[in-house]
Amino acid sequence: MGAEGQMRSRLERAAEGYDSLIIAGDANVAYFTGCYCPGSALVYSSGSATLLVPALEYYKAAELAAGWMDVRPVLRRSTESVDLPGLVRATIPEAAAGLVRGRAAADLGALGRGLAEELAARIPGLADVARRVLDMRSIKGPEEVDAIGEALGITERAMERALSAAREGASDFELAAEFEAEARRRGAERFAFDTLVGVGPNSANPHAIPRGIRISRGDYVVLDGGTVRRGYCSDMTRTLATGDDRLLRAVEAAVEAALDAIRPGVPAREVDAAARRELERWGLSGNFLHGLGHGVGVEVHEPPYLAPGEERALEPGMVVTVEPGAYVRGVGGARIEEMVLVTPGGGRLLNSLRRILRG
Amino acid sequence: MGAEGQMRSRLERAAEGYDSLIIAGDANVAYFTGCYCPGSALVYSSGSATLLVPALEYYKAAELAAGWMDVRPVLRRSTESVDLPGLVRATIPEAAAGLVRGRAAADLGALGRGLAEELAARIPGLADVARRVLDMRSIKGPEEVDAIGEALGITERAMERALSAAREGASDFELAAEFEAEARRRGAERFAFDTLVGVGPNSANPHAIPRGIRISRGDYVVLDGGTVRRGYCSDMTRTLATGDDRLLRAVEAAVEAALDAIRPGVPAREVDAAARRELERWGLSGNFLHGLGHGVGVEVHEPPYLAPGEERALEPGMVVTVEPGAYVRGVGGARIEEMVLVTPGGGRLLNSLRRILRG
Repeated sequence: MGAEGQMRSRLERAAEGYDSLIIAGDANVAYFTGCYCPGSALVYSSGSATLLVPALEYYKAAELAAGWMDVRPVLRRSTESVDLPGLVRATIPEAAAGLVRGRAAADLGALGRGLAEELAARIPGLADVARRVLDMRSIKGPEEVDAIGEALGITERAMERALSAAREGASDFELAAEFEAEARRRGAERFAFDTLVGVGPNSANPHAIPRGIRISRGDYVVLDGGTVRRGYCSDMTRTLATGDDRLLRAVEAAVEAALDAIRPGVPAREVDAAARRELERWGLSGNFLHGLGHGVGVEVHEPPYLAPGEERALEPGMVVTVEPGAYVRGVGGARIEEMVLVTPGGGRLLNSLRRILRG
Repeated sequence: MGAEGQMRSRLERAAEGYDSLIIAGDANVAYFTGCYCPGSALVYSSGSATLLVPALEYYKAAELAAGWMDVRPVLRRSTESVDLPGLVRATIPEAAAGLVRGRAAADLGALGRGLAEELAARIPGLADVARRVLDMRSIKGPEEVDAIGEALGITERAMERALSAAREGASDFELAAEFEAEARRRGAERFAFDTLVGVGPNSANPHAIPRGIRISRGDYVVLDGGTVRRGYCSDMTRTLATGDDRLLRAVEAAVEAALDAIRPGVPAREVDAAARRELERWGLSGNFLHGLGHGVGVEVHEPPYLAPGEERALEPGMVVTVEPGAYVRGVGGARIEEMVLVTPGGGRLLNSLRRILRG
């Protein structure tokens, strides 16, 4: 099945039970079209697909749509609100409303308040299929797993290079520079999120961004980065321990416990609990400040979430992170983040870079 | 006035006419607290400020709040939904509702549909002050202009370096690597947006991302990048013409026309129109696919927008981009983007890198 067949089959499934489907969340549009064109909307009705794009995305979308979608530039508010002569005919809600027939649904839950309300006001009885779309996205096909693997390969090589530059006196800015430059040279289309670098006490912040802190002997150094390739994200973390490595060994044990717990049918919360129990054994359960992991796909954070209270059962085809952390305020922290594909036989690790790094 | 006095004065203005104020848009929280802690909410009531943060942002927020805000970890859904033992007491909407007194307002228009609805359901009569907050943000104080200038200085040096590497055979990935690495080494906290690099025909896409295209003689090369420093964004574009430079000269003339049009009291649309008229003289008005510019602050795109139909008058303290472009499908494009501070006397250019680059 080529890209077009695959996209059509996704649309059919998402539209099931409705005559028309509107997809307007940026990540959802990318999932259904292969086009990352922020501010666009896809209307699928009676078997035909129309992609409504801001004028400045028109050339790119027209190239990527490759004949199977009708691509139309439309007016978008704010900076792109330009009346491209002879081409721009309507706003996105207006154009979308004009294309729907019969019972219609949209990914309302994925939209900002303004757009969701405008669509709902123009299309009476508009149903919300945001949840259904997220459920579809959570199960990856082989070609999606390939793209994620390609992105992760880039991230692993870039992280290896950055960590090899992590010597005493190097700053968090320099580590980010090494990571990002190597990722770009290897073909990263964009970064999946702002690169996180925590050095010394700042590594106790799970969301540490570079501040100009230089590595001193004894520091933990946490590097969390992700790249996008062919529209799919990767996300991983490594910690370098330059002194005491107890926090690192603890989170490594928690990774192992989580990997052992992954198999189809297991509720997501149980994988989180397995890692949490391991950290409790190390006396660190109160130092694990976030959930264990999340799905990764066209978005870097998407369902399923591996966290307390998440009842959803794991299924083959899910790609999730496993990222236990232990953070000690004022001292430092450690986190290891792996990416895992759920298969019928259990979890298949997608990373290959080693986990315990001392320097 | 120190940072605390400044933040309090902003809160007083935003809350005027209400007894309590909730700020929950990520960029707005950063504007009112100095803390970029996604997923947080600030509640201001009877002169006291409480910052509700996801557990994993707690250490960072507690450090930045520096005594004047009460910082509390709260439960957040998705990957951060962890019950941090003994600390996490409530969800953000629940905690916020418990803190408000009397007539309350929130930045509802800045929120996703789910959070906005949950807040409105818990707090009867909740008013929307999102517009008021954006209006406040559009006028920068001197310390904000300083931070923007610092970010822009980093971006200019990084762009200079990347463009010096833009020789025949170099790829768009390599240019992104050079730009980003130099920006990081000079202290970029994060990037304001995904770096755009358009080489050859791909430069006709205003939103071109790297694809592995190598520079050939005759190509236009467009590099559009931005960095964040002290929480404030920068955004600029340069085009290198390696052959014919007509598109570049046209957009340079359009920049000049726009700069001449900038002064307090002029409707934003007139500045856009000035640039558009200049491109019309070059026969390129149909090739300008977007608005002329946008405000820049804690977000890289914020009001005011310099675009057709935008009636808002320019005021001293606004920082805007001026970024005319000319795009010829299948051939290439050129764009120059400058940052400008509106002063009582007219527009003050914040950039210093030269505009016409041939190679």
